[in-house]
Amino acid sequence: MSIQSFIPPQRTLMGPGPSDVSPRVLSALARPTVGHLDPTFIGMMDEVKSLLQYAFQTKNTYTMAISAPGSAGMEACFVNLVTPNDTVVVCRNGVFGARMIENVERIGAKVVVVDGTWGRAVDPQALEDTLQQTPDATFVAFVHAETSTGALSDAKTLCEIARKHNCLTIVDAVTSLGGVELRVDEWGIDAVYSGSQKCLSCVPGLSPVSFSDKAAEIIKNRELPVQSWFLDQSLVMGYWSGEGKRSYHHTAPVNSLYALHESLVMLQNEGLENSWARHKAQHKKLASGLEALGISFVVPEGERLPQLNTVHIPEGVDDAKVRQFLLNEYNLEIGAGLGQFAGSAWRIGLMGYAARNENVLLCLAALKEALAQ
Amino acid sequence: MSIQSFIPPQRTLMGPGPSDVSPRVLSALARPTVGHLDPTFIGMMDEVKSLLQYAFQTKNTYTMAISAPGSAGMEACFVNLVTPNDTVVVCRNGVFGARMIENVERIGAKVVVVDGTWGRAVDPQALEDTLQQTPDATFVAFVHAETSTGALSDAKTLCEIARKHNCLTIVDAVTSLGGVELRVDEWGIDAVYSGSQKCLSCVPGLSPVSFSDKAAEIIKNRELPVQSWFLDQSLVMGYWSGEGKRSYHHTAPVNSLYALHESLVMLQNEGLENSWARHKAQHKKLASGLEALGISFVVPEGERLPQLNTVHIPEGVDDAKVRQFLLNEYNLEIGAGLGQFAGSAWRIGLMGYAARNENVLLCLAALKEALAQ
Repeated sequence: MSIQSFIPPQRTLMGPGPSDVSPRVLSALARPTVGHLDPTFIGMMDEVKSLLQYAFQTKNTYTMAISAPGSAGMEACFVNLVTPNDTVVVCRNGVFGARMIENVERIGAKVVVVDGTWGRAVDPQALEDTLQQTPDATFVAFVHAETSTGALSDAKTLCEIARKHNCLTIVDAVTSLGGVELRVDEWGIDAVYSGSQKCLSCVPGLSPVSFSDKAAEIIKNRELPVQSWFLDQSLVMGYWSGEGKRSYHHTAPVNSLYALHESLVMLQNEGLENSWARHKAQHKKLASGLEALGISFVVPEGERLPQLNTVHIPEGVDDAKVRQFLLNEYNLEIGAGLGQFAGSAWRIGLMGYAARNENVLLCLAALKEALAQ
Repeated sequence: MSIQSFIPPQRTLMGPGPSDVSPRVLSALARPTVGHLDPTFIGMMDEVKSLLQYAFQTKNTYTMAISAPGSAGMEACFVNLVTPNDTVVVCRNGVFGARMIENVERIGAKVVVVDGTWGRAVDPQALEDTLQQTPDATFVAFVHAETSTGALSDAKTLCEIARKHNCLTIVDAVTSLGGVELRVDEWGIDAVYSGSQKCLSCVPGLSPVSFSDKAAEIIKNRELPVQSWFLDQSLVMGYWSGEGKRSYHHTAPVNSLYALHESLVMLQNEGLENSWARHKAQHKKLASGLEALGISFVVPEGERLPQLNTVHIPEGVDDAKVRQFLLNEYNLEIGAGLGQFAGSAWRIGLMGYAARNENVLLCLAALKEALAQ
């Protein structure tokens, strides 16, 4: 066996994530590793916390990055808050709503599903109706930006309905954070998780999370230990907490956190609202270009995610052949359909650093050429 | 709020991990991100698998890296194999044995503890005695190299005893992999996990694991779903498996895996036995230098880990002051004591890239100066 160093190609990443990573972030990633209890590193963690509070628009003390991908962030929110006595209403309009259900089931809690249409936002009236028929509901969970369909749900309204029925909210913001309006405190979200590799344009592997004071109280006061030791936030908080001595829990992914820090500094410098506006502007350019190519959107206009454009594969076009052409000839990755949309849709991402003029132009021109093959 | 880019100091890492990372590995880490289903990346994952099989000395098909730190690797081994009906005999001679117990308890399985002395290897006779009194035992779990104490246990003998009593074995090789002899197949280990940031000298955040065919069968045939969705190996295997189409489970930490690949290529080039010998040789140099300074070892000679030297803090010496002096004056990190040894011991790591002449010299000279303060 003699395996050589791996030199990856230079791709343009316009799929559902990971998205293009800025050279600034890659350069931060490669800075010299320090100890996970080094005073300089602890100081950097505090900054990550402040920067995440800004990105989430929250004052929540328990705001941090889980040392694992978004799916672990999802699991952290569920296993820390939900116990077998709870009833969780889950809105499912794509793959990630379905994954939420898996999480609730593995806790042994009762799950009530609000089923929606793939490619559409969650219907607030359907949630309202379900909650009226579920008086024992304790949590409402939904996906803000469905990465499998490209649909954006009205998180503010869904949270209002949940609150009216005395439910806490668990929100998937994996693809929304940094790309579209998200206001954790103003909207009253109790637990929210995201991913590093979407609109933050950091490398994959970390999951920013934030818990409201109400959620943090539940975690602190629960009697049944959390079923996951690694994701037990009552322990993790002792490492991320700013007060007094940091207690060792696990070895933090030091370099990945350098990268997250840098991507959040870039977001701070750009300004959150400016980032949202940039995603929208690039989406408009892409959308009009796609329509000119005769490609139509899966999601109705008012419910589209600017950062993830799910479009019908034109009739007679070979899905795999086109994506392979783009990858081989232009080093351009666009996403395949997932779940119900496998084979019938493409997902074109404009996330974070990928939401740039150059990328839109390249994508449209290369796609035009691919379709003419 | 205006937070600047974080520029870490250049440390020499001689604590219990993370260890010094080679510039080659940092450079691999910063290579351009590709998609987690990119054909080039899938090819690289296959190589990581082969390289890990070499490092673990195993032919196990289910050999891969968990997308999270060593604690998650520990949890993956326990939650995938152990069910509430099992009885697990756990050998505890330090912090990480105690963490194994936490894992078993959170599954709801029965745990029987073989308590050992901190700073000593696990006593094979104590395991034998316990197993004779525990006819319903199904698993034996122990730590090969206790990071909290610096003691090396005789994994081969412990596995033999477990096998004689029809128990499967779960072994913590976080600090041992790459640093001391470890032969997964020859010794008959059924589940083993490690960490990227110890003797592999990769950045922290990944956990190499390997499951024997017997263990893989248990995972495939279990009726009760694994309590963690993220760590459910029956799903993760669909992404890491070499056969047919890769199924999406979570977004792999692409860049961290580049780094792991590079660190494993370096191990392959050096040769596993050479790496073990290098750790031993550097340990001998360090040990004789420490003894010349009047510093004595916590662990008896035959049970010492070459890669983690746990020593008594000399009487009258201020623990924190010395470590701060080393960090501030020489950018040198050594480890504090953990658990029972907090305040009374130092842990001096010689792991992976840190096991070099330069480091031993620096550590001894700087420590001499610190003690003279």
